[in-house]
Amino acid sequence: MRSLLVHETLRDAAYQYESTPVVSSAVTYTYGSIYERTVRLADSLTRLGIRRGTMVGVMDVNSHRYFELHHALSMVGAVIHTINFRLSPQDILWTIGQAHDEWLFLWNGFGTLTDVVAPACPHVVWMSEAAGPDREPDYETLVAEGRFRVPDIAGTIAPSDVYSVFYTTGTTGRPKGIRYTHQQMLSGALQIAHALALQDTGANLTGSDVIMPLIPFFHIHGWGVPFIAPYLGAPLVLPERSGPEEQVELIRQHEVTWSNMVPTQLFMLLEATSDPLPLKVLTGGSPLSSGLARQADRQGIQFSLIYGGSDQLGSAISAAPGLTGPQRLDALGSRLTPFPMVRMEVRDSAANQVPSDGATLGELWIQSPWLPDGYLDNPEASDAAFVGGWFRSGDLAVRYPDGQISVMDRIKDAIKSGGEWVAGSVIESIISELPGVHSVAVIAIPDARWGERPKAVIAAGSGVDADRVQQALSRAVDEGRLAKFWIPDVMEFVESLPMTSAGKINKTQLRNASR
Amino acid sequence: MRSLLVHETLRDAAYQYESTPVVSSAVTYTYGSIYERTVRLADSLTRLGIRRGTMVGVMDVNSHRYFELHHALSMVGAVIHTINFRLSPQDILWTIGQAHDEWLFLWNGFGTLTDVVAPACPHVVWMSEAAGPDREPDYETLVAEGRFRVPDIAGTIAPSDVYSVFYTTGTTGRPKGIRYTHQQMLSGALQIAHALALQDTGANLTGSDVIMPLIPFFHIHGWGVPFIAPYLGAPLVLPERSGPEEQVELIRQHEVTWSNMVPTQLFMLLEATSDPLPLKVLTGGSPLSSGLARQADRQGIQFSLIYGGSDQLGSAISAAPGLTGPQRLDALGSRLTPFPMVRMEVRDSAANQVPSDGATLGELWIQSPWLPDGYLDNPEASDAAFVGGWFRSGDLAVRYPDGQISVMDRIKDAIKSGGEWVAGSVIESIISELPGVHSVAVIAIPDARWGERPKAVIAAGSGVDADRVQQALSRAVDEGRLAKFWIPDVMEFVESLPMTSAGKINKTQLRNASR
Repeated sequence: MRSLLVHETLRDAAYQYESTPVVSSAVTYTYGSIYERTVRLADSLTRLGIRRGTMVGVMDVNSHRYFELHHALSMVGAVIHTINFRLSPQDILWTIGQAHDEWLFLWNGFGTLTDVVAPACPHVVWMSEAAGPDREPDYETLVAEGRFRVPDIAGTIAPSDVYSVFYTTGTTGRPKGIRYTHQQMLSGALQIAHALALQDTGANLTGSDVIMPLIPFFHIHGWGVPFIAPYLGAPLVLPERSGPEEQVELIRQHEVTWSNMVPTQLFMLLEATSDPLPLKVLTGGSPLSSGLARQADRQGIQFSLIYGGSDQLGSAISAAPGLTGPQRLDALGSRLTPFPMVRMEVRDSAANQVPSDGATLGELWIQSPWLPDGYLDNPEASDAAFVGGWFRSGDLAVRYPDGQISVMDRIKDAIKSGGEWVAGSVIESIISELPGVHSVAVIAIPDARWGERPKAVIAAGSGVDADRVQQALSRAVDEGRLAKFWIPDVMEFVESLPMTSAGKINKTQLRNASR
Repeated sequence: MRSLLVHETLRDAAYQYESTPVVSSAVTYTYGSIYERTVRLADSLTRLGIRRGTMVGVMDVNSHRYFELHHALSMVGAVIHTINFRLSPQDILWTIGQAHDEWLFLWNGFGTLTDVVAPACPHVVWMSEAAGPDREPDYETLVAEGRFRVPDIAGTIAPSDVYSVFYTTGTTGRPKGIRYTHQQMLSGALQIAHALALQDTGANLTGSDVIMPLIPFFHIHGWGVPFIAPYLGAPLVLPERSGPEEQVELIRQHEVTWSNMVPTQLFMLLEATSDPLPLKVLTGGSPLSSGLARQADRQGIQFSLIYGGSDQLGSAISAAPGLTGPQRLDALGSRLTPFPMVRMEVRDSAANQVPSDGATLGELWIQSPWLPDGYLDNPEASDAAFVGGWFRSGDLAVRYPDGQISVMDRIKDAIKSGGEWVAGSVIESIISELPGVHSVAVIAIPDARWGERPKAVIAAGSGVDADRVQQALSRAVDEGRLAKFWIPDVMEFVESLPMTSAGKINKTQLRNASR
């Protein structure tokens, strides 16, 4: 009997799509040759003593080696901890300690960070073409010296075995660890591909697409690409470390048709070229402003929004069934359809569903077959977020009569003015449409009368001032896009906005600075 | 936590696609109202004593009631035995006995068969609008009297619980029973929808399609439609008992865009109208002759072939990536792509893989996450078919260099001439292209010199004779479509060919008559 194990997707790709290319920077492999390298690596791993349940931290950019490790560690039953190298060094070391990593697979291209992290583990494998004499064992030697023979241990792994551990990138406190089994990870990741194929989205995905993941593998495994690409048999391009200009070049050179990225990456990609860039993009992680959506559309990018997170995997996708033109663009930028088998409810503070009227705000509760049990060694946070088989997302949302959902804000970032929710993201979206606005955040500031009031912090060119923003917001009120009391009382113009390691605007920092 | 349980698909549809229509003959429901009826029914079932593990036989045409039972029985944890009413009465009674059915849900429209079957079980529920005084309890009363409250027992059901039992329709010996769990049935059935969405087929399927299942629910649950339709939120039209003319009328009236049927049903549908019939059709169960494929194409039907069976569920779909015109038609009629997560190998008698050269015949071995454990109380047949986690399909196939597969024949129907396989289906396909040929079967007849030789049995109009068939086959040899030694030695012309209960040509009967 075969079961839902991560490496089965690569085994199938090697059999069914043997000669389909897997490109990593300068080198072109195939699913056939990558599978052989992976099996050889797995054989060497067993001889190092890496086996079922061994904790293995990996810190690398999106390379073919990282892709191979996703499957080789699965094959020997080890647990992959995908280390977020954008955390602070202290937090990185803390996550390695909390995950109890016994081995580190470490790319030596992180400069001083490499030297800081290496001593955190008893055993290090160096990931590079030529690691140097003091950096052994090195990855390529393990591949070269392994036998092309699937380890016996592969037959003992169950879908309910833990496959991976990774960490949230919360803006307050320590990162929170989450564990997923093979079954949870595969069913969740593959449902992204199914939802994209079944819904009318801007980022539909089939085996004919050429996929380049720009979401780092440490973020929920690059939103599942290491499993989705072989599952579909789709050609895969791994960008390794690359800037926006190089990414544009990779897209043109390898005829990439599908990519994923957060809005900030999309913005930088569009800054890097003024030419059309025909590409299907799955984006998410933070709201897509309508200004950026329109710019992407002008340059020929079709997009869809994914909704999810480290503690729930993917749950919904933006869809625009039958819509065209600006209506389609708006729907794809905001209207979420739950994945099949995912239940999403918008609930008030007493946990009762709010009316599906597209207006009443509430917290988004989620139920899916791949929800984790809770956070790693953190019963308090687990009890708060995982309640009776549901995940409380902490997101503020509305539900429409047709069952679609719009996420408005993080509850902790939302503003409560006179007892009413103000969705900062809606205000941000309207301000972002103004030409010359680079980025904007709307945050809560304390107010004696109303409790809280909104404040806009804007990074913009010299042509944008408070009057112009005020005019745009008043027009939005006239058009019915905004409630009048949502207009921020205070506007501050800054050079740039502070970002988190996940590429999101750091609202906590902004809020603290405004108190 | 939510898990893969059959009735979750209907619960989700009622929540997410509440007002989407479910049409059953004269009545139009919605997923919302059907779900309410289903919950009320489930509540009544518990009061009848039907609970987790209770065996329940159902004998009905494809009605909304049968659809509801698929989910109500899931909700109380009972096991549904979908009774094949096309078996002989003796075999029907035998399957009811072997499955240990405690309850029968029986439509009273089967005439004398109803009266024969009813006494086989201690408890009968009558399925009809008005069952009459001597036929109680009746289904509609159970629905009317149940409370709209999901039974508590629903919370105790596990994905590894058995969900259904049904029987193969073998041409020799007793039918063989197979059991599937919720997890197996759902993951297998839903993968049909995923494969159709991910591959370039002629029968792609999304939530925008209007689905009418013409495969009876007793055949592998109508190839999964009772689960697929709510999973996609697609409008559903249930044909109940209807002939080809009525089916054409239902298609036009409800703007049906997607259906499934065996080739014989497709043939009859096309006979019933000479007008174009724009429709996506998933067909399978027996080979689609190229003659029928061309006729379907002329009338505007797009089709795809599904490969599978009662003892493996669905495993592959015909796809024609990037092909157009006649090439596309040929590929969709014969070239199978395994579903994602399905492994298909073509093996020789020593169980070694044959070359993937598109020519070497071997037996098709299958591995998938939803394979059953074996046949019900039939260790001999189980041991022969289920070997080391693989299912030996008993089908003769070739594998092409691109990994696609063509199934040529059942091994037991194939002909071995001078030690070489002869694929009767290829010969049948060529003969079927001749205008005036209604149906054709090529079978093995004993031969002193070669062991076996092929014989063609042909039902055709008066314009077709042995000379014309001989010419067509010789032309096919010249075109490289046929090996010369495959040309049948004997041709017999008949009025019509004998059929099995599954609508397949009964080759066993033909072979026995020719010995």
